Amino acid sequence: MSELRGPVRIVGTGLIGTSIGLALARLGVVVELVDGNPDNALMAERIGAGSRLVEIEPQLVVVAVPPDHVGAVVAEQLEATQAIVTDAASVKSKPLTDARRLTGDVSRYVGSHPMAGSERNGPLAARADLFDGATWAITPHATSAPEAIDLVRRLAEACGARTVELSVEDHDLGVARVSHLPHLMSALAAGTLADAPSSHLELSGQGVRDVTRIAAGDPRLWTQIVSANSTALTGLLEQIRGELDRLLVALGKEEAADELTAILGQGVSGAVRVPGKHGTPHIDLVTVLVTIPDRPGQLARLFADAAESGANVEDLRIDHSPGRPVGEVELAVKPGSVDQLVEVLTDRGWVVHR
Amino acid sequence: MSELRGPVRIVGTGLIGTSIGLALARLGVVVELVDGNPDNALMAERIGAGSRLVEIEPQLVVVAVPPDHVGAVVAEQLEATQAIVTDAASVKSKPLTDARRLTGDVSRYVGSHPMAGSERNGPLAARADLFDGATWAITPHATSAPEAIDLVRRLAEACGARTVELSVEDHDLGVARVSHLPHLMSALAAGTLADAPSSHLELSGQGVRDVTRIAAGDPRLWTQIVSANSTALTGLLEQIRGELDRLLVALGKEEAADELTAILGQGVSGAVRVPGKHGTPHIDLVTVLVTIPDRPGQLARLFADAAESGANVEDLRIDHSPGRPVGEVELAVKPGSVDQLVEVLTDRGWVVHR
Repeated sequence: MSELRGPVRIVGTGLIGTSIGLALARLGVVVELVDGNPDNALMAERIGAGSRLVEIEPQLVVVAVPPDHVGAVVAEQLEATQAIVTDAASVKSKPLTDARRLTGDVSRYVGSHPMAGSERNGPLAARADLFDGATWAITPHATSAPEAIDLVRRLAEACGARTVELSVEDHDLGVARVSHLPHLMSALAAGTLADAPSSHLELSGQGVRDVTRIAAGDPRLWTQIVSANSTALTGLLEQIRGELDRLLVALGKEEAADELTAILGQGVSGAVRVPGKHGTPHIDLVTVLVTIPDRPGQLARLFADAAESGANVEDLRIDHSPGRPVGEVELAVKPGSVDQLVEVLTDRGWVVHR
Repeated sequence: MSELRGPVRIVGTGLIGTSIGLALARLGVVVELVDGNPDNALMAERIGAGSRLVEIEPQLVVVAVPPDHVGAVVAEQLEATQAIVTDAASVKSKPLTDARRLTGDVSRYVGSHPMAGSERNGPLAARADLFDGATWAITPHATSAPEAIDLVRRLAEACGARTVELSVEDHDLGVARVSHLPHLMSALAAGTLADAPSSHLELSGQGVRDVTRIAAGDPRLWTQIVSANSTALTGLLEQIRGELDRLLVALGKEEAADELTAILGQGVSGAVRVPGKHGTPHIDLVTVLVTIPDRPGQLARLFADAAESGANVEDLRIDHSPGRPVGEVELAVKPGSVDQLVEVLTDRGWVVHR
């Protein structure tokens, strides 16, 4: 088993690269910071993610540059060093193809994808604990050296992540399904609101807020991400187009109601498979609704009361319909603690609905 | 101005009908409960939503039956009584057309749509405060009598709702945009996950959870809802198909990156228009991330500390990536209270990121 001794060279000191630097620095691993933008590297150095000048050859290089440039920088680092090289891009086929085209031997390269991020960008948004408990996909290819795979796994573990090994193709199809396609669907749904009259927007509820939230992401970054995964995405989008055509034919024809119900039923089957907190499906938790006055301190009071019942709140959601003078909080708890929770909250004067 | 004196006859004692009954009963208005399913009416009566037997003629009839039957029941009630008649269906053109076809004079009918609901169904899920502060759309048609419009507005206000007046057509186009289309897009995105390998689902993050949440709704109910609004929805779905085709052409062509960015940019423009809590756009709030150990009592401690800073938490979200031993809570507060909040939380040992 390869040990992660360092130095680790990080190329690209944005959110992900700098966070990896911070995570490794807290373990005492020597980190070298490289960035085309000297301000970024300086900032990353100042917050303790590593040094801009390290004279020892790296054991491992982590390429954390924007998606479009990953393959080229991987090839460059394979040629410039004897180190194991990995990257952190959210799509894995294109960097591999690009690197292979640019350099002969890619056996020291193993792709990886830390599944963590933030709506924030840049080194100042970085955090040593960004990957704590997150999933980190590792995607070896046919000629990846076993010690390279090992070392990249060590990197992920050193950052506190849980590793999942997948082939390059399987990874890209997976993220197309659970990340890129949802993003595009969200963008298309949100796009119809751009020129809508305000009176239509006034009818918005929680559903449209949820569906369109991720559509607010940076369009340039997402153009790079979805472009890099165009093969997997094209197949899924064609599947969506087929379903959309089925919908358009069925809609409004009384005799086609079963067809509509079947399409919507397929949606239910998919929705319930999306893992919730801690990998458990939604349906393992019970939700309780509590009415709450919209004043400072009420949530504190509610959670103090909930804690006294011994229930651990696994998830929660505030319903914030426009103009409501009172809010509603949905608490999700394990089935075993729900009775006690409802009893304690009711005793203390909360209006609770199961 | 017409006063709401009652009796109010409610036809259909599901979640909405029974909740209206409870809201009116708390004001002392006499409510008559009618349901094709005698068990439902009995249950609604038992929880205090009204009586099954009222001998005085109703002043107002509220039709709260499943979408497919609304028009027929409205016509029936117009003929059987001299009362003003309204309904609570989420689509307004079809009931009006149906009622007009079945009876001559619809001047005593004014459609309405209380924008509140729940994932729960049936009389036992009903609550007197379901409509407190919610939006209640009122949709007069060309021949609606002014006193009918007035009385329906009184009904909504008596239930604690905020009224918005829209034409029938405008309402249906609005809900197609902010409710029905998002539901269908969510269902289509979720549908691609129904047969996906589990390893793909393991890569899920918060984005796909948000986008697919509403797809879990009852397929039979949603078939009725979207079928009743097929005209407005067909136009929007055709627009989506056009954008989907643009996407499919642009995807993976380097020279079409600007086209992709434009489609995604349109999504951003739409997403930021969706009103958040209290009708304010998302961008008026500042979010702060707090790392929180996954143990009972931690949320209580956090909110107690937040309350002491004087900040009112306007919205919050727990990030629950599968397998994370620590969670992350995103608190949204007004810009003016963020500095004080961060200072107080940091002082008390919380790991806070802006």
